[in-house]
Amino acid sequence: MLQQITGGVCAARGFRAAGLHVGVKTHNVNKKDVALIVSDTDCAAAAVFTKNVVKAAPIHVTKNHLADGKARAIIANSGNANACAPGGEDNARRMCEAAAAALGCKGEDVLVASTGVIGQPLNVGAIVEGIPTLCGLLEQSAEASDAAACAIMTTDTVKKEAAVETTVGGKTVRIGGIAKGSGMIHPNMGTMLCFITTDCAISPAMIKEALLETARVSFNRISVDGDTSTNDTCCVLANGLAGNPEIAEKGVDYDAFASALQELCVQLARKMAKDGEGAKHLITCTVKGAENEAQAETVSKSVIASTLTKAAVFGCDANWGRVLCAMGYSGEQFDPEHVDVRFASRAGTILVCEQGRGLAFDEDLAKKILTEDEIVIDIVMGEGNGSCTCWGCDITYDYIKINGDYRT
Amino acid sequence: MLQQITGGVCAARGFRAAGLHVGVKTHNVNKKDVALIVSDTDCAAAAVFTKNVVKAAPIHVTKNHLADGKARAIIANSGNANACAPGGEDNARRMCEAAAAALGCKGEDVLVASTGVIGQPLNVGAIVEGIPTLCGLLEQSAEASDAAACAIMTTDTVKKEAAVETTVGGKTVRIGGIAKGSGMIHPNMGTMLCFITTDCAISPAMIKEALLETARVSFNRISVDGDTSTNDTCCVLANGLAGNPEIAEKGVDYDAFASALQELCVQLARKMAKDGEGAKHLITCTVKGAENEAQAETVSKSVIASTLTKAAVFGCDANWGRVLCAMGYSGEQFDPEHVDVRFASRAGTILVCEQGRGLAFDEDLAKKILTEDEIVIDIVMGEGNGSCTCWGCDITYDYIKINGDYRT
Repeated sequence: MLQQITGGVCAARGFRAAGLHVGVKTHNVNKKDVALIVSDTDCAAAAVFTKNVVKAAPIHVTKNHLADGKARAIIANSGNANACAPGGEDNARRMCEAAAAALGCKGEDVLVASTGVIGQPLNVGAIVEGIPTLCGLLEQSAEASDAAACAIMTTDTVKKEAAVETTVGGKTVRIGGIAKGSGMIHPNMGTMLCFITTDCAISPAMIKEALLETARVSFNRISVDGDTSTNDTCCVLANGLAGNPEIAEKGVDYDAFASALQELCVQLARKMAKDGEGAKHLITCTVKGAENEAQAETVSKSVIASTLTKAAVFGCDANWGRVLCAMGYSGEQFDPEHVDVRFASRAGTILVCEQGRGLAFDEDLAKKILTEDEIVIDIVMGEGNGSCTCWGCDITYDYIKINGDYRT
Repeated sequence: MLQQITGGVCAARGFRAAGLHVGVKTHNVNKKDVALIVSDTDCAAAAVFTKNVVKAAPIHVTKNHLADGKARAIIANSGNANACAPGGEDNARRMCEAAAAALGCKGEDVLVASTGVIGQPLNVGAIVEGIPTLCGLLEQSAEASDAAACAIMTTDTVKKEAAVETTVGGKTVRIGGIAKGSGMIHPNMGTMLCFITTDCAISPAMIKEALLETARVSFNRISVDGDTSTNDTCCVLANGLAGNPEIAEKGVDYDAFASALQELCVQLARKMAKDGEGAKHLITCTVKGAENEAQAETVSKSVIASTLTKAAVFGCDANWGRVLCAMGYSGEQFDPEHVDVRFASRAGTILVCEQGRGLAFDEDLAKKILTEDEIVIDIVMGEGNGSCTCWGCDITYDYIKINGDYRT
């Protein structure tokens, strides 16, 4: 019933988007740096944010604007994080007010997010001046979603979009999203922005519930470099234009919506992990047979966050000892002598460690498996029935290059 | 009163050492792979180990042999971790028994440690066969300590030794040590081995106490890559030949010994951090003005472990935003608007963030400061009087190269 569709944040009824270069990014006028997403009608809205104690200014403003669970639009810039910089909250509010004036709504109906360098003053004047032009570009099309997706990219190498269609309460409901990731990505929201739109009719309380549960099993299960950013934000707008009976409580309709939202967010999360700064491999770590889901999650996150495991995957080296080692320092108690480890990809599957002991395995096959761009580290623990999947990427020369001189 | 001296593990009276290539490292016959350290008389002995759930076999054997708080010798190999490999404990015991037979003591009097690749069978035959030759090389000299220090190196680029002399109970007491570090180094014992010898007369209970307290503020405050290994071991042997009244309780003598031990271990810890795999910079992170020491330690460790901060230091980029960000996700609660950050080195000191806000600073001076091989990230928090210093290193292309293909 769940179908992949096109259109990104413009897939759902009544949503328009645009992206534009206004001058926050000073290096290259071809790089868009402001995105706008607008609903034709009021939306139930919710967001989840970074848990970093140091929070960027737009997060405080967006939280405030979501107090009533309603919103109409999202404005976001790349190129500057508007974090630890003078006048941050004033600048974030100015972005909302300028967008609201051009759209004919209230400043409180606009959510705001930023991504980029920390600690430098935001050129808010360029954004405010650019907003009328940006509004003129608004349209409901795949191209417009693309433009918005490009406008939130920093070191991302590809734009990240997805959209799905499902049936809720007898009506066709669409959910679409754009995201950016790349660096500073770690469980509990990395430096990621994600904006989701849906035409599902759902109450503010239920959309928040669905977003929290979804973030837990998608964005909070990816890691690029273990650094949790100051700016992470995932917002969802639901305008109800699908005409389904409004979801106001849990039940069949909620489940149908939530499972489609989860599918969408897992797709976007995988895209973020795969496009981690400098990454050559998407690493999926599946843990089965853990004591419970929480243990499986802790172990899986420890493996995908291990710098040594990431370096081994970069080298296409079946160094399962580092996998076992990362499991061991995860903080979880388990019996290493019940652990099996397999590496898998499109090229095949190979058992490399059985009951905690290394096997003599076909090194050529292992190399072939690990040379694929999407690889799986498959762990079976023998402690119980808990399972979890997390996503990460390898660490490469390019990661060091990108981050050795990001600021200048 | 505390003086730096030469001689490493042979600096203290009655200790001999040797290092030899026996064939555990198969790539290069010039690389020593077995070290032996022996006291002429029985020693009070203690050790601290990795907290990783997956522990290498020698750790179980050494723990067992330390049950009586006594030992005579330490045997260690590099090139193979003897972890997650068949027959691990038997092999570790065989190393002890072969050394004991050659030295004329009991197997239980010998401590054992290994470092190298995880999950491959240890060539214990080569070690056992080599032990008579190794014993023939034993001598008390700086060269012999050097040979033992070289024999425990893996990806280390320099051998790590230190020795100090102090006065305890009116007698001159010497403490010396060798160590290896390099990869998989993280608070709570990275992949590090450290062997310490002293001629101080001290009870098993007090040497253990002194070692635990020292490890907490030295080895447990360094991070290379956030990976905690399966093999970390730090052993100390105290033979009492200095002739001081035996330290059997806390007091002036204990304090004098413990502070000398701490000085020695901080020196060795700094050497490990500076020689982290591929490292170009030693990073010292000092945190002052924290609520208490525990908060200062958590914040400082978070900064030195941040991959993004490490990459910025590699690029000599004064990206203090990443420092603030790493403080923020440390898990500690504090007010970011009370934080000052300075970068310092032999080339000078520069304030880059004051009260949580970026300053316009001299980029040329900042670059000059960060180009030095030892740099300090100096953080003042304004929360209280807690302080802590931790040590780490930058992450470089060479780290990726070394770890992309370590196993093969």
